[in-house]
Amino acid sequence: MDFKVKIIDVEAGLNVVVIDNDDAKKLDVGLGDRVKLKSGNRETVALVDLARDAKVGEILFFKDTAEKLGAKNGDSVGAESVKRPASLDFIRKKLDAGILSDAEVKAIITDLMNEELSAAELTAFIAAVYTRGLNSEEVVSLTNAIYETGDHLEFKNGAVVSEHSIGGVAGDRVSMLLVAIISSLGIKMPKTCTRAISSASGTADTLEVLCPVSLSMDEIRKVVAKTNGCLVWGGAVNMAVADDKLIKIRHPLRLDPEELLLSSILAKKKAEGAQFVLLDIPCGRGAKVDSVEPARVLAHKFQTMGAHLGMQVECIVSDGTEPAMSFIGPVLEARQVLRTLECSSSGLLAEKACLMCGIILHMVRGISKEEGYRIARHQLSSGKALEKFREIIKAQGGNPNIKSSDLKPGEFSVPVKAVSEGRVDHIDNKAISRICRAAGAPADKGAGMELKVCIGQQITEGAELYEIFSSNKERLGFALKQAKLLNVVEVEKIILDTI
Amino acid sequence: MDFKVKIIDVEAGLNVVVIDNDDAKKLDVGLGDRVKLKSGNRETVALVDLARDAKVGEILFFKDTAEKLGAKNGDSVGAESVKRPASLDFIRKKLDAGILSDAEVKAIITDLMNEELSAAELTAFIAAVYTRGLNSEEVVSLTNAIYETGDHLEFKNGAVVSEHSIGGVAGDRVSMLLVAIISSLGIKMPKTCTRAISSASGTADTLEVLCPVSLSMDEIRKVVAKTNGCLVWGGAVNMAVADDKLIKIRHPLRLDPEELLLSSILAKKKAEGAQFVLLDIPCGRGAKVDSVEPARVLAHKFQTMGAHLGMQVECIVSDGTEPAMSFIGPVLEARQVLRTLECSSSGLLAEKACLMCGIILHMVRGISKEEGYRIARHQLSSGKALEKFREIIKAQGGNPNIKSSDLKPGEFSVPVKAVSEGRVDHIDNKAISRICRAAGAPADKGAGMELKVCIGQQITEGAELYEIFSSNKERLGFALKQAKLLNVVEVEKIILDTI
Repeated sequence: MDFKVKIIDVEAGLNVVVIDNDDAKKLDVGLGDRVKLKSGNRETVALVDLARDAKVGEILFFKDTAEKLGAKNGDSVGAESVKRPASLDFIRKKLDAGILSDAEVKAIITDLMNEELSAAELTAFIAAVYTRGLNSEEVVSLTNAIYETGDHLEFKNGAVVSEHSIGGVAGDRVSMLLVAIISSLGIKMPKTCTRAISSASGTADTLEVLCPVSLSMDEIRKVVAKTNGCLVWGGAVNMAVADDKLIKIRHPLRLDPEELLLSSILAKKKAEGAQFVLLDIPCGRGAKVDSVEPARVLAHKFQTMGAHLGMQVECIVSDGTEPAMSFIGPVLEARQVLRTLECSSSGLLAEKACLMCGIILHMVRGISKEEGYRIARHQLSSGKALEKFREIIKAQGGNPNIKSSDLKPGEFSVPVKAVSEGRVDHIDNKAISRICRAAGAPADKGAGMELKVCIGQQITEGAELYEIFSSNKERLGFALKQAKLLNVVEVEKIILDTI
Repeated sequence: MDFKVKIIDVEAGLNVVVIDNDDAKKLDVGLGDRVKLKSGNRETVALVDLARDAKVGEILFFKDTAEKLGAKNGDSVGAESVKRPASLDFIRKKLDAGILSDAEVKAIITDLMNEELSAAELTAFIAAVYTRGLNSEEVVSLTNAIYETGDHLEFKNGAVVSEHSIGGVAGDRVSMLLVAIISSLGIKMPKTCTRAISSASGTADTLEVLCPVSLSMDEIRKVVAKTNGCLVWGGAVNMAVADDKLIKIRHPLRLDPEELLLSSILAKKKAEGAQFVLLDIPCGRGAKVDSVEPARVLAHKFQTMGAHLGMQVECIVSDGTEPAMSFIGPVLEARQVLRTLECSSSGLLAEKACLMCGIILHMVRGISKEEGYRIARHQLSSGKALEKFREIIKAQGGNPNIKSSDLKPGEFSVPVKAVSEGRVDHIDNKAISRICRAAGAPADKGAGMELKVCIGQQITEGAELYEIFSSNKERLGFALKQAKLLNVVEVEKIILDTI
């Protein structure tokens, strides 16, 4: 059947066409069925949407489909109904608790990449994995399939290291220190990092205060060749592309099946060319994993899967109950990382970085973790890590001479004070994220928070608990409103309730 | 934040707005998050879509949203981020195998009706029900919630009866006979029926050959007041509206969780005002239920749920392995039903109808099923059922004087012959549907098939197995192509394989 093209001036992010109900009947297709479209020698498969208001004989294209077919307004295109892709049967098989073969997993990811599956169909896949699980073979298949959807780095000589935290801890910028220390020792560490989804800042958002983070694969190769390290935003490169698509699908229902977490992380590490991977699993109240035992189980899975994929994986289970440092938000975090490298601050983050470097050096060089820790400490205190960090900033296009004292948070700020006295019992990562985001982070680089207390500290009524920063007075007001609703700093209660 | 409205001239069937990436960051919303829109004194909640090509400060509305807000091109509307609806947490709870309360089920259906859930989120709900199941209380909650989303019929005096088949059997037009017989006995039977989704014809498609089937609730009330019966397309009335939306969502992955089947059917029967319901569960090879035992389990569930909902439900398990009659397709089926009522044809369909009437009369009048069967037979043979059927056709706006001999199938036809000899072992409902649809059914009312053989019959090579009809020569060619690929009539094999 031939249709006349009318183009809607919007990208749909998916191959969808809109036709009239009666035309759909003639084609024998219904809502969500597929049609093969032909224009000249180009072809594509699109999902059918129906409209009461479409004209008979007219087919509405969104920009994406028009570009794929090279079709213009008024062009004539052929359409015929085609069978649903086999990948839908494989999604159905997983919903029925079946075991997917390597080819079946690959078919799902291939159709995802070709935009042949709707958001609803992909959600069914995520729900299937969430409720039915994947076995080790399926996770390896999925990881390889995701890995193959993007570019990857390869290095001929020397060890390549990577690190990843499963996240959930505010101010956890340990990767920035790790890359500086490890690459200052002549070991390659090309690290991709993420932007914030629901937190105040991701490593990419924070590093962007100091230098560009959206680099091409070729630029990354050059930076690593020059400095051994890099810290770039994963979203700007074409690595493990399918994973980004899956993350978008998982967002509305916040579905995080463990198997997708495993394959997502491992596919990215493999794409970075890593042979040695250190994984950080923060656990405890408010973290993604709530106690040490399930963290151990997860760690074991990472190691097994990693081995299947040709990577040596070590895991640490860290305390994820409170922020990794007292400063939250892009500028405040960048300043604190610089301060640490400038040796004007020691603190928790430096200690964590050196402990993790100890494990990495144990893997790469076969020395003891304690020896590795001492080497890392030396790189920090001697200023070699700072020197390397400046080199990387310069190679990525930033100003290598920047000092922590150059970095200023938003000009508007307000302190938040304790309304009762007692011992600090809990500091809530999620509440911190919500307040910082209300203040404008991460888009407003100067927005954020400085914590003035830590767990275990005895405070009096009226003591300053934290200070909120923003570049915008109105947003600071929003943040303060949030602060009054949320309990960032929980003071120990002796009497929990009176009845 | 204020935006300038630009309207896209298409109905999206959902509240979706498209904004620029940077604007989304300012609003702190991501893909699939929600914004509350305000224009004058109207408000609505919409899902956010992001576009690389949207202009900063501009918001793209599809027609639906523009109408809801009464907004025009160039208008200014306010937008603010709002929390995700609580129903998403309930969907998530079901994915986690939790038990939903009555209020939680109702919240999901309410948000579905308010178009506040995306197709992907609703698919997650279907997948959750499919993988985790619903207990009896949840099914009752769901049925009531669906029932409450639409209009319903109520009758002050006398018994109200309904019937439903879970489907899958070609040519099963027994409802048309049941309505004629039962209402000829002074018992109310206001029956809604469906159009074909993947079959050659639904009861609504077949009846439409004889009279209009898209009636309003008021028209239905008048037809029933006059004749005791009606046969109308459920899609044209506002009954159990949520169910139609759920069916659309289930279509792409062909997910039919049993609990949705139960609540879908029972909500519609309740909306018809039925006190007595007879359910037909066809079973066997190619049917929706493959053997008698699971059919019995399903029947028991229908009865229990029915009782909770104030309806007496009886079930029959029928033979669903072959078509209910030899004529398939709207005109051919309508002709055969008329022939049966005109007493010029007895056959399987009449027998099934009288057996089912026996059970209905047993429920309504307390007489034995055998006595009920004899009464039904009498209504058929005396012509009283035909008279009632003509009355209903007239009341619905059709020609009451139509005769079976007035009905002609498509002018083009082709016979399909046996390529080997043997005993007929199986006649395949799905293959029949595909061939009839290729021939143009149900849009082409004259398209269809006449079967010339039945199970158990001994056939010789070259014997005519069936004839395909179409109003369009090209479509007949398509159908013949399908016929060569599919095996409608399977002949018994003595040697299954030689190795």
